[in-house]
Amino acid sequence: MAEPLSDFHAIIPAGGIGSRLWPLSRADAPKFLHDLTGSGHSLLRDTWDRLEPLAGPERISVVTGRAHRAAVEAQLPGIPDRNVFLESEPRDSTAAIGLAAAVLARREPDIVIGSFAADHVIRVPHLFDWAVRQAVATAREGYITTVGIQPTEPSIGFGYIRKGGELVVDGAPEAALVESFVEKPDLETAKAYFADRSYLWNAGMFISRADVLLAEIAANRPELHAGIVELAEAWDDRDLRGPAVDRIWPTLEKIAIDYSVAEPAAAKGRLAVIPGHFDWDDVGDFASLAKLNSHGHKNDLAILGENARILSDAASGIVVSQTTRVISLIGVKDIVVVDTPDALLVTTSENAQRVKGVVDALKLTGHGEVL
Amino acid sequence: MAEPLSDFHAIIPAGGIGSRLWPLSRADAPKFLHDLTGSGHSLLRDTWDRLEPLAGPERISVVTGRAHRAAVEAQLPGIPDRNVFLESEPRDSTAAIGLAAAVLARREPDIVIGSFAADHVIRVPHLFDWAVRQAVATAREGYITTVGIQPTEPSIGFGYIRKGGELVVDGAPEAALVESFVEKPDLETAKAYFADRSYLWNAGMFISRADVLLAEIAANRPELHAGIVELAEAWDDRDLRGPAVDRIWPTLEKIAIDYSVAEPAAAKGRLAVIPGHFDWDDVGDFASLAKLNSHGHKNDLAILGENARILSDAASGIVVSQTTRVISLIGVKDIVVVDTPDALLVTTSENAQRVKGVVDALKLTGHGEVL
Repeated sequence: MAEPLSDFHAIIPAGGIGSRLWPLSRADAPKFLHDLTGSGHSLLRDTWDRLEPLAGPERISVVTGRAHRAAVEAQLPGIPDRNVFLESEPRDSTAAIGLAAAVLARREPDIVIGSFAADHVIRVPHLFDWAVRQAVATAREGYITTVGIQPTEPSIGFGYIRKGGELVVDGAPEAALVESFVEKPDLETAKAYFADRSYLWNAGMFISRADVLLAEIAANRPELHAGIVELAEAWDDRDLRGPAVDRIWPTLEKIAIDYSVAEPAAAKGRLAVIPGHFDWDDVGDFASLAKLNSHGHKNDLAILGENARILSDAASGIVVSQTTRVISLIGVKDIVVVDTPDALLVTTSENAQRVKGVVDALKLTGHGEVL
Repeated sequence: MAEPLSDFHAIIPAGGIGSRLWPLSRADAPKFLHDLTGSGHSLLRDTWDRLEPLAGPERISVVTGRAHRAAVEAQLPGIPDRNVFLESEPRDSTAAIGLAAAVLARREPDIVIGSFAADHVIRVPHLFDWAVRQAVATAREGYITTVGIQPTEPSIGFGYIRKGGELVVDGAPEAALVESFVEKPDLETAKAYFADRSYLWNAGMFISRADVLLAEIAANRPELHAGIVELAEAWDDRDLRGPAVDRIWPTLEKIAIDYSVAEPAAAKGRLAVIPGHFDWDDVGDFASLAKLNSHGHKNDLAILGENARILSDAASGIVVSQTTRVISLIGVKDIVVVDTPDALLVTTSENAQRVKGVVDALKLTGHGEVL
């Protein structure tokens, strides 16, 4: 791979718990801290390792909750202190990415920033690298740029990006305008999208000049922008940051960057897309975790857990073992078993989406200590 | 109920582990020590409580392994010392019941003995009481007598007893000869048996005069009989018992009493049967355990375990909880989940018979510590 870019800073928002992966993911062990692929590394670390060849170790920032500071620093021993942005409470992605962008723009005015989820799985890193390099080239031209994933099946689990007219950008032969965003479709529609190669999966990756991103926030959400800028001005002053965070952060509007930036920019013809040809998964639930770890063999039993002691007979699906117990699975198909010291989940791939409902029920029934 | 009988001694062989109920049942916690019905008592204790009104507390013996002595005595605090028969190793039911019969016959020559499994579930105790009283009356006439269960469905899980001609016995209006024993049938045959009221389930209960039982063993297995008698002669002498057990017990032929006594006696017209009209189950596997605890409601989730913390959504089957973990079951039908501190089983009712195979595999793969 090529050298790191000199004007690119990657931002990793590491916020979500991943409730649909309970009891594996939970408040004190969120999804991004787990090794979900058997790589030996957490998803956060894998994300860092993908970005380092692009941004270099000095230009990767993580935005995370105060509670996760120690875990994040343990996963990323090379991260400079100033690149760890701690949230006192979650305020959604516009505030998180916007604040980092504003602070980074004060440090390096012409910087191009890119935001990449901490808990997605990507394979074939050189194709990821190539897509991001094209996105950065496009962003330099003033476009807010996303990387859309070329679908490998007619998924109903993801939102889609419709590619429009091609752009002529030096260093980005695949750049195109985004025509529109489309919500998760039904199967019929998903099949049509899959056949029509101009629909890409929305993986939530946004690359743009920091000042362009902030201008877009200013245009669409002026109050939020003002709060972000005020906080950013205080950020790098040791004495001012704390009081400014206490005063401003809790007042910032909670809104996803998709709505505050991406959709309005698309409507104005200012949003570009680079198709990504790498394998990508957001590992949203145990069904996708099972699929990811069974390498496409439908009758396999995928096993996650370093010390797993599994005895299976005619079983398929996934078993996640975080204990040293012997786990015996007999004649259960597409099963999901997650064995942790204080909670056990048994469900099926088909029911994987319902796990979130159980988490909500646990909150209501006084079992919150296992969440 | 009536007074205890003055000439009846009940023998409870408490030997089997119940491998098809692993990991609930295991070497150090065999099936008979568990409360499988939510009664608050172990199956062994329930067995004692059913027999006490028939035999009185002085005439109930337990034959069990040395390892289970303390547990048995804790369950049955009223059992006289002399009525606990400890096996140094398992030698099958002829040796176990034959030895107890021989010892008891030396103590009370005209005694009628009856053997009853320690780990079956029986409901409607007054009908059990009535069947056994008829069986004792029939045994007094010199018949080896069994109680066969009137089937409530065309089961393929049990052996059958075919009832023959009626017997005229005072105090036993339902007594009949046994025409033959039949192995577990296929479903077609089971349906025919169920329609023909003369087929009863073989519940392994045998009632006879002790001397008649011993004579039958002598006729069919003379060497085994000689060993039993020699051991019985030494049994009640504190100094002689130990050496005699060491010398004789390990040499005794291993053979089920069904083959050494019941079938030959049936062939000679010396085996009688009393139909039992009580609910009976041998709780042979988790499918029958689930059925037993769901009270016939097919879509229920039966829960066993005093401290069970279960959260279920569209789940049916059975969950056995021996830990304090939160167990969440989502959309799993006819599921069997057994959660113990060192082992977890997940299977379905349909696969319940395969549990034994896993236990065998665990032995072979070095996981014996959880058996």
